[in-house]
Order: sequence, then C-alpha cells, then structure tokens
Amino acid sequence: MADPSTSLPLTRASVAEARKLIEPFIHRTPVISSSSLSELASLPASGEGKAKPKLRLWFKCENFQKVGAFKARGAFHAIERLKKEPGWLEGGGRERGVVTHSSGNHAQALSLAARTNNIPAYIVMPTISAPPKIAATKGYGANVIFSGSTSTEREAVTAKVIEDTGARLVPPYDHPDIVLGQGTVGLEFQEQVELLIAEEAEKSGKPTTKKGLDAIITPCGGGGMLSGVALACEGTGIRVFGSEPSFQGGDDGKRGFESGSRITSVKTLTIADGLRTPVGAVPWSVIYERRLVSGLYAVTEEQIKSAMKLAYERLKVVIEPSSAVPLAVVLYDEGFRALVEREAGEEGWDVGVVFSGGNVELDKLGALFGGV
Amino acid sequence: MADPSTSLPLTRASVAEARKLIEPFIHRTPVISSSSLSELASLPASGEGKAKPKLRLWFKCENFQKVGAFKARGAFHAIERLKKEPGWLEGGGRERGVVTHSSGNHAQALSLAARTNNIPAYIVMPTISAPPKIAATKGYGANVIFSGSTSTEREAVTAKVIEDTGARLVPPYDHPDIVLGQGTVGLEFQEQVELLIAEEAEKSGKPTTKKGLDAIITPCGGGGMLSGVALACEGTGIRVFGSEPSFQGGDDGKRGFESGSRITSVKTLTIADGLRTPVGAVPWSVIYERRLVSGLYAVTEEQIKSAMKLAYERLKVVIEPSSAVPLAVVLYDEGFRALVEREAGEEGWDVGVVFSGGNVELDKLGALFGGV
Repeated sequence: MADPSTSLPLTRASVAEARKLIEPFIHRTPVISSSSLSELASLPASGEGKAKPKLRLWFKCENFQKVGAFKARGAFHAIERLKKEPGWLEGGGRERGVVTHSSGNHAQALSLAARTNNIPAYIVMPTISAPPKIAATKGYGANVIFSGSTSTEREAVTAKVIEDTGARLVPPYDHPDIVLGQGTVGLEFQEQVELLIAEEAEKSGKPTTKKGLDAIITPCGGGGMLSGVALACEGTGIRVFGSEPSFQGGDDGKRGFESGSRITSVKTLTIADGLRTPVGAVPWSVIYERRLVSGLYAVTEEQIKSAMKLAYERLKVVIEPSSAVPLAVVLYDEGFRALVEREAGEEGWDVGVVFSGGNVELDKLGALFGGV
Repeated sequence: MADPSTSLPLTRASVAEARKLIEPFIHRTPVISSSSLSELASLPASGEGKAKPKLRLWFKCENFQKVGAFKARGAFHAIERLKKEPGWLEGGGRERGVVTHSSGNHAQALSLAARTNNIPAYIVMPTISAPPKIAATKGYGANVIFSGSTSTEREAVTAKVIEDTGARLVPPYDHPDIVLGQGTVGLEFQEQVELLIAEEAEKSGKPTTKKGLDAIITPCGGGGMLSGVALACEGTGIRVFGSEPSFQGGDDGKRGFESGSRITSVKTLTIADGLRTPVGAVPWSVIYERRLVSGLYAVTEEQIKSAMKLAYERLKVVIEPSSAVPLAVVLYDEGFRALVEREAGEEGWDVGVVFSGGNVELDKLGALFGGV
C-alpha cells in the first residue's frame, strides 16, 4: 500500500482524480430502476400510522462490476497509486508484489488488479474459507496462503509474508486510496441518474423540476464504500446514509455514530457476510468526524432476506445478502421512511441504492431460500 | 386476435414494421457479455476428442423486459394489429376485450398490453396454477377465469368466455402477429452487438474484421421466438438455431425437424416449464418449411441446471430455467460445438444467446439448487 501520507486528501476532487486513474480498468456499471419496486416502497408498511414516503428508487449495479463487486475500484486505485510512488516501479517494489488478508471480494479484487498490472499478489485466507472463494482467488492468479481464522492469526501470517517477500500491504478498507477508489461509484451514480431523469422527462414530454438524486444509501461494513460515496457527494446536497445488519451487534457503525465513538470490535454471523467487520479509522474520519453522513440504519436478517427476494424477483438481478441491506432499510425501516416522508414531502425523493456485489453461490441461495 | 389473413407477410420487413409499432411500449433490453463465460465455452468439454470451438458469447436479456419475458413483444404487437383492424376500435371490439389461456408469461404479457390500452383482458388459467402467477396476472388488472388443467378443459372455458363476452382470442405463439412481435428481439440483438463490437475495437485500438453476430440461438417451446428471430435474420447470413429440453420428449421441435413432420403433441414435466408445448403450425412454417433455421439441439435437465448456475454466478442475472436451455447447448452439446469448430475455424463465432425470461420465484430456485 502507498504510504497514507502520499495519498490525496479526502475530498470530492480526489475521488474525481481516482476515477480518472481507474476508468480504463473497471466497468461503468449500469443503473436500473423499477416502477413496481418504487411503488412498493412508497406504500406504507402494514400497521397503524406507518410512514408513507414518496420514493423513486435507482439501483447502481456493482454486482456487474469486475470480480462481481465494487471492491475492484479500491483495489485498482491502490495499485495505480503505488505505481505513482517514487521508486516503486523502478526500484523493484513491483516485483515484490502486494499482499492482503481477506476471504471475500477484496481478495479477488486485489488479485485481478495485480494480475492486470503483472504484479505478484499474496492473499492470506483462513483455511476454513469456502472452496469456491479459494478457487476464484487462485483463478485470478494469486498466491493463496492459509492462516487460522482469528484476526491475530491472520495478521501474523500476513506479517510473515511481508517479511519474506517484501510485498506491500493493501488493506480492504482502512486506507485513503481505498476510500477514494470506492467513492468513484458515487460520482458515476450521480451522473447516470441525472441523465436518466433527463431522458425520461424528454421521452414522456413532461417537464420535471427534478435534476438528480436526493439521497444515496450504501451498505456499511468496514466503511470504505460509505465514506467514499460521502466524499463523492460533498457539496452536492445529496444526503448519504449507511445501512447495516442488526444481528448480533452487526450495527457497530450505527451504534458508534449515535454514541460518538467508533466501535472497534464486532463479532456477528449475519448473512450479510460482507458487513461483519467494524468500521475502520480512515472511513470513520469521514463518516463521523466530518459529518458527511446523515445517518445509519440497521435491519434484521428477515428483512434482508425479504429485500433480496424482491431484488431477484422484480429486478432479475443476482445480489449477495450484503447488497440487500440498503434496500431493506428503504423498504422496512420506519425511522428512515419517516425521515423521507418528513423531509421530502409531496415531491418525494429520488433515492440511489447501491448494490455492492453479486458473489453468492446458487446452492447457498438454495439453503437460504429453500424453506421460505 | 386479428384475422391472420390481415397480418403482414412473414418477412424480415414485417418484423421491422412490428418493431415500429411496439417500440413505445417495450424495453430495448441490454446485451451483456462475459469474457469468463466465453473462455469457458471455448474450452473442450472433458473427455477425449471433444470439440474446441472458438466462441464469443453475447446475451440478450429479455429477463429485463416488461413482465420479465420476451412475451411482452408479441402481446403488444397483437394488440397494435387489432387496433389497426377496420372497425375494431370504433365498432366496440375494444370494449369486448381480449382473451387467452395461459398460466405463464403470455398471461401477464397480454394482461399488461391490454391494461396499457385500456382494454379488458380475460385470462383462463388452470385452478392448479401457482398462486404467485395468479396474483401477478390479477396484479396487471386481468380477469382470471379458472379451468381444469387439460387442454380440452382450458379450450372449453375459453370458448365460453368468447361466447359470453365477445372477446378476441390472442394465442401465445401460433399466430403471425405474435411471431412478428417476438422477432423484434432479433433485430435489436443484431444492431446492439454490431455497436458493441465496434465500440470494443475502438477502445482496444485493435481493428477487427468482425462486424456482428454469426449465429443466434433461442429457446424453442411453441416456436414463436425461434421463428420470429429466424425471420429477423433472413438474408443477413446469421445462422439461427433452436434449443429444447430432451426430458420426456420435450425435444419435439428437434424430432420434427429431423423427421420432416411437425409433432403436435408433447407431454413433459421438464424444469424448463416455458418449453413444454409443441411447436405451433405458424412457427413451423418458418422454422421447417422455409428452412430459415439451421438446426435444433436438446439438452438434459442437469445441463440446464448447470447453465443456469453459471448465468447466476458469472453473469449475476436471474433467468428462468427455459432461458438457460440455449446456453446449455452452447456449453455442452457436442453436435453444436463440433459444428461451430468446423464452420467457424480459427476466427471463431460471435454467438447470440437469448435469455428469454426471468420469472422464477426464489423459493423454487431454493428447491432446485438447495441440494446441489
């Protein structure tokens, strides 16, 4: 990883710089909408006195991103920044490669970004990782090194790899280069929805006062995506929200946001397996300290499954459980829905929902939904 | 239904006419590609002496079409043609509505097309139809009338509805207006791939001799889509292939094609439930009699499931089992693969695969894949 002191400042302009660097390597993923889901979201939940927000939903499909998740953005950006570090390319840094510990999408993202640049990648994974994830990571040409599954064990093995190889660490979220890379999703999303709203107005012949998104809601695990999107929206008037699973304290971001101090440890087995980590210090400096995020909301496992079912059946897209979390907030969280009803009024809000990834095996889906 | 004698002739030009009529009402669905699936398709299947065709795959996502299936095209076209029939609009035909018997995607497609035009729709469904399908059809504002599940029972109830209401029958596939409507998918597909290939060549800076698709493969149930796409490709040099499930004789189209006479009855419970019907007479007149189709291929239930799994896991799109049938042929049918190897040679073929629809419930998927 590039020394954080050489990173660009955490600003919207830096996200735009990151975008220029990674654009040749990543997909500009599509934005889709669904009138039936927007209508459903605008109905009050069953029960007395429930909020009736007027919502128009837009979905940014990072499940169609390279490696099937937004993580490709941060990983490619981290490598581009390393390439800009004086001496790294020429001094042999490139030959020594990059290393991370991850059993999830970041592992595959870093492997792909490294292979694309002809750089060795070392990925430390717990021996208990799912065989398809190990196979996928090896499929991108990475060297997989196994470790125990506690964070202490993983970090020890990673330290050993660094000692042996001289590889540079590229963490999954807690670094400015990663935050800025993930933030590019926010810039694209803004532009795409502006274009789609303008096209729609032209097609229907009905003029609209609406220019673009009123809010974006993203999942929050380590906070790389949430903080990056918050930076991308700085000064635009677009409100940014985070979303988490509540199961077994998985809502560490929300609890930290409300209490005022970051929660640094969390242990949950939520089905939203991309969101089991606590928020990192760098993302926190954006999310909480700079107050660029308007709020975080948490949903239950059942709500996540319901939202996932709707995404499959109405939108026909494959998303992983973590990706269904923001949609679940929009559909089921009374706090969020009451806020929209109050603030958006008659005109309603255009809300951007980030589908962060689509890496789920069909047999796991079977296990999740076979008994529904 | 419009009297077939008032339909346009079965030609490519008529498909283009149909397209003009339905364009305001349907989605121009996206075409996607996947280098990993194209690579996989270009590897020989395991075993000695297997074919090694060079394939580049393109997928036309009619699962993102209105009502989640290509059937919207034929239904909207049928209504547009009725509107052009002298006296139908003014003479009260519109008020008497339209009727069909279907428990599948055509039911929802006709319901939507009727509602859009403010026309009553009567849908005859077997009482044993899946409750979500009944609910979806009612959701589009149709009047659902129940019948027994044999074709005799369904037809009797339909005849009664026609007698009582004066509604016009819109069959699911066996009519020129339906065939021409479904064919529009072929015209769009050709144009979209030409554009994508040109864009890719420009982006990579590598000039290409390739201009567009070499072949299109579609599912074949009643044959509306296959015959329509065949018409759309007439005179273009693009070869058109059909694909079917082999389970319990579901490959009636293939058997008829090879024996020279249409098979008019089939009884299979293949998981590809959209393809359980025999090929209709009108589609047959295109597929076999005019020799616009180069061949039909059939795959097993396991091959369909494997292809479906790949579509979900690699492409992140939700498709119904019927939609996975052409992909299964491309990946697993040695006859098709040997043909491509032989005819396409070193340069390979750009093959267009039509994903016909995405209407599958998540719990059914669970049941299909829970035990994989």
